[in-house]
Parts: sequence; structure tokens; C-alpha cells
Amino acid sequence: MTDTADFGEASDLPQVYKHHVFACHTQRPPGHPRGSCGAAGAQPLWDRLGKAIETQGLSEIGFTASGCLGFCKAGPLMVVYPDGIWYRPTTPEDIDEIVESHFKQGKRVDRLVMVLTRR
Amino acid sequence: MTDTADFGEASDLPQVYKHHVFACHTQRPPGHPRGSCGAAGAQPLWDRLGKAIETQGLSEIGFTASGCLGFCKAGPLMVVYPDGIWYRPTTPEDIDEIVESHFKQGKRVDRLVMVLTRR
Repeated sequence: MTDTADFGEASDLPQVYKHHVFACHTQRPPGHPRGSCGAAGAQPLWDRLGKAIETQGLSEIGFTASGCLGFCKAGPLMVVYPDGIWYRPTTPEDIDEIVESHFKQGKRVDRLVMVLTRR
Repeated sequence: MTDTADFGEASDLPQVYKHHVFACHTQRPPGHPRGSCGAAGAQPLWDRLGKAIETQGLSEIGFTASGCLGFCKAGPLMVVYPDGIWYRPTTPEDIDEIVESHFKQGKRVDRLVMVLTRR
């Protein structure tokens, strides 16, 4: 026995959020070679997402702005944990579907999932 | 059968990171009633963490700056997913222990864990 616990025991801790969303807020200038989620039109989508979570009283959903998530060409990009699901929404309807399906019904939205590979 | 998959099937997706760290970079002015991770001395800790991940070649560890994680009095605050472990490191040695124990040995550092409850 040691003082530390392995991850098999991690679930003994209460989880703060059922789903915790991190949405990339990086904004690079137009024409920047890396691009950015901001340049790809992320902000209105994240505004809509934050508002939906708030107005629908989804208190079990955490929503946090993040810096660069590292896959800039794939933006607008958000990741949902602990699920480990990366989404690329591009329209207001995409946001609404993620909220309704993933956050309220517990079903991921496969058509918006990005499968990413580290460089 | 539907086109969407429930979370029982989510693990069929390859995970981008073994552990993905989000470290709060919020900085409010000194004396602000909410406080902030920045005001609590977070920046040098996150600098050390980012440098450790990079110099030790821990490519399976994602490290992303985040906005406010919502528990400002508890800062400096970082959360590790998919584990859902929230840490409050305050010294360089705390950072080194999280890197060595959690990220390299897979053992969480219980003495630095914050158990948080949503308001």
C-alpha cells in the first residue's frame, strides 16, 4: 500500500461535470499560415453554445474557453471530456445538435466528430 | 439502430492524448474579490509544467491554457482529463511530482487533489 492511488481508483472522486467542454478561442490574423479557430468563425458558435448551456440550465455541463488545442487546420474545434470526443461544428444547427444529442440525450454526434492524430 | 452511438461505444475512437491538462490562465487585478489563478501565482507553475512536458518528450500529454475553470478561490487550478482529476499545485516541487507520478507513473498525487463541488 502506498499513499497514492492508481487510476483504477480515480472514480472514487466525485466528478465536477458530467461533460466538460473546452472550446478553442485562438484568434490569429487573416492569412496566418497556421490558421486558427477564430479565423474559421468559431466565436459565434461558442457564444451560441455558452448561451444554450446557460439558458437551458445544463448545470452538469462545464464550458471553458481554451487556448490552442493544437490542430489548427481542423477548426473550429472543441473537445468534450471525459468522453474525449473532438467536434468540429460549423453552423448554429451543429451547435444545437451537440447540445441536444450529446449533452441532453447522451448520444455523440458522429457526423461532427473529428478523429485526430498527434504529429 | 440509429446513426449515433452512445458513450458505451465512444472508446472505439482513438484518444489523442493519454492525459490532457487544462491550466487556468485567468489573471484578475490584485484585490479583485473573485481572486484568480494568475493572482495566486499560477504562471510560473504552468511555465514549469509546459517546459517539463516538452523537455521530457511527454508527447502523450496534452497541455492547453484555459480560461476560468470556475473555482477561483481554489487556484492555482488545473484539471487532467479524461481522469477528471483537479489539482492545486503551489510550488515547483508540486509540478515536478505531478509530472513524475501522474504523467509518467500513472499514479495520481492525492495530496494535491482538489475535490470540488458545483455551486
